[in-house]
Amino acid sequence: MSLMEIVPGKTRIGWIGTGVMGKSMCGHLLRAGFSATVYNRSREKTQPLVELGAQVAASPAEVAENSDVILTIVGFPHDLREVTLGPTGTLTKASAGKILVDMTTSQPALAVEIYEAARKQGVYSVDAPVSGGDIGAREARLSIMIGGDKGVVEALAPCWNVMGKTIVYQGPAGSGQHTKMVNQVLIAAGMVGICEALLYGYKAGLDLDTVLQSVSSGAAGSWSLSNLAPRCIKGDFAPGFFVEHFIKDMGIALAEAERMQLALPGLALAKQLYVALAAQGHARSGTQALLLALACISKVEWPKRT
Amino acid sequence: MSLMEIVPGKTRIGWIGTGVMGKSMCGHLLRAGFSATVYNRSREKTQPLVELGAQVAASPAEVAENSDVILTIVGFPHDLREVTLGPTGTLTKASAGKILVDMTTSQPALAVEIYEAARKQGVYSVDAPVSGGDIGAREARLSIMIGGDKGVVEALAPCWNVMGKTIVYQGPAGSGQHTKMVNQVLIAAGMVGICEALLYGYKAGLDLDTVLQSVSSGAAGSWSLSNLAPRCIKGDFAPGFFVEHFIKDMGIALAEAERMQLALPGLALAKQLYVALAAQGHARSGTQALLLALACISKVEWPKRT
Repeated sequence: MSLMEIVPGKTRIGWIGTGVMGKSMCGHLLRAGFSATVYNRSREKTQPLVELGAQVAASPAEVAENSDVILTIVGFPHDLREVTLGPTGTLTKASAGKILVDMTTSQPALAVEIYEAARKQGVYSVDAPVSGGDIGAREARLSIMIGGDKGVVEALAPCWNVMGKTIVYQGPAGSGQHTKMVNQVLIAAGMVGICEALLYGYKAGLDLDTVLQSVSSGAAGSWSLSNLAPRCIKGDFAPGFFVEHFIKDMGIALAEAERMQLALPGLALAKQLYVALAAQGHARSGTQALLLALACISKVEWPKRT
Repeated sequence: MSLMEIVPGKTRIGWIGTGVMGKSMCGHLLRAGFSATVYNRSREKTQPLVELGAQVAASPAEVAENSDVILTIVGFPHDLREVTLGPTGTLTKASAGKILVDMTTSQPALAVEIYEAARKQGVYSVDAPVSGGDIGAREARLSIMIGGDKGVVEALAPCWNVMGKTIVYQGPAGSGQHTKMVNQVLIAAGMVGICEALLYGYKAGLDLDTVLQSVSSGAAGSWSLSNLAPRCIKGDFAPGFFVEHFIKDMGIALAEAERMQLALPGLALAKQLYVALAAQGHARSGTQALLLALACISKVEWPKRT
């Protein structure tokens, strides 16, 4: 099968999952001149894209029928399984030569399963999870971590370039997901450190904003420290990234690590603390709310500053 | 008691502890025009400073006799206790109005103890641990975290300014040490994350340099990731900062946290992994060697690349 050329104004995009991320990302494709057919479980969330010219389909299968490149970004691996491999999933209607691009953070093994299933009917499949959050999606500054056939990934450049800034091919199917897991392992440990450090400083009677002046720019510095620690200090636990989604990601990474016979004690601890945080009613808080779970353990009353 | 004015060419500096950090830091003071009397347990390590014009004393007490401002940077809290409160320590000879400045990473409680002991004889005391390592010391780019009486800390500005770049007053005696503990808590968790993330990526078959391209500049990014992960990938575990010193620091932080009734499960885990690393013969490796302890647990053979 030959690889199509991907060109705005000619290539028909399909988009499944128009939540906070997908809405912005598909919007960039529409504004770049691609036509799009979109699907979302809650149909009303497709409205902003309709206003940009998108058509709405009644099922993932119908999206696949009407599109050349079908992108997905949904909540959980079981959602991805349903919209791709399920009875009304994209693969029921995707014909040879079409390309599936999954941008959900999901299981590397599922990415490989979809890749194999797609290949059997001549369909290409690429896994391309992102980091950068809602702001990165809105500003088209995402980091896109991509696994699949290299030629297919390269052909998709016109799509990547309007959605992201750091676009890196990581290897065969599943490699994008594995890279995203590396990203999440780093973030998980970093958040534990930040929250424990803030609690230590608070109990020691330090002024935490002044502490950040000393520690932010040196060897202890990190993106999370600069961006999330100030929110913790202000008592702002609103979501940039939901606790429940992070628990999902850590679960995937731990399961994959176990499958590869790799023990990750730091990640396991981080996940347990996040499970406790969710149990305390914070599943829909931002990941920086981990501070509250650690405060709870030692009965620290974290001050409300706002 | 009145506070002296600190002026190069007039104020006599005393320096105790001329290891890799102290040598550079005292050298900056000498080059700025201060005179200095120095002491080190291994006398030969004072030689580079003698070449810059320093006098060598036979004991900490003799340093104190001949100096106005007496700075210390030694290995462990018990060393600091000996050179300050011991039978030939600085406080046996420090007269009213002199200033003690400890730059060792040490116990906050010991900083307070020294502060109180000094005050009884009219001596000022400041705790001022640093971060930035040997390179930061050499390039006078240290972060100096300072606790003590604010006026004394301000009077010392001519000393701080020739040794460091980020100079922040953190509060009363012990606050400098507490801030340094915050710094170490952050670094400990970060290193666990980096090493687990690299092992995950390695076992998943990813190219780790390519992975760093995806994850370094976003929400997972940190100083340690940019500076230490590449060393791990190259198999370079040479010390920037010694494992045995880091274990000391984490021990201090955990003991202080326990005293403040604060549980730090992430830091406790990190310390245990570092204890295992030291048991494996890596007490004098760099902190990034933590990767080897985690690799050992899961019998991962980390490739030698250099």
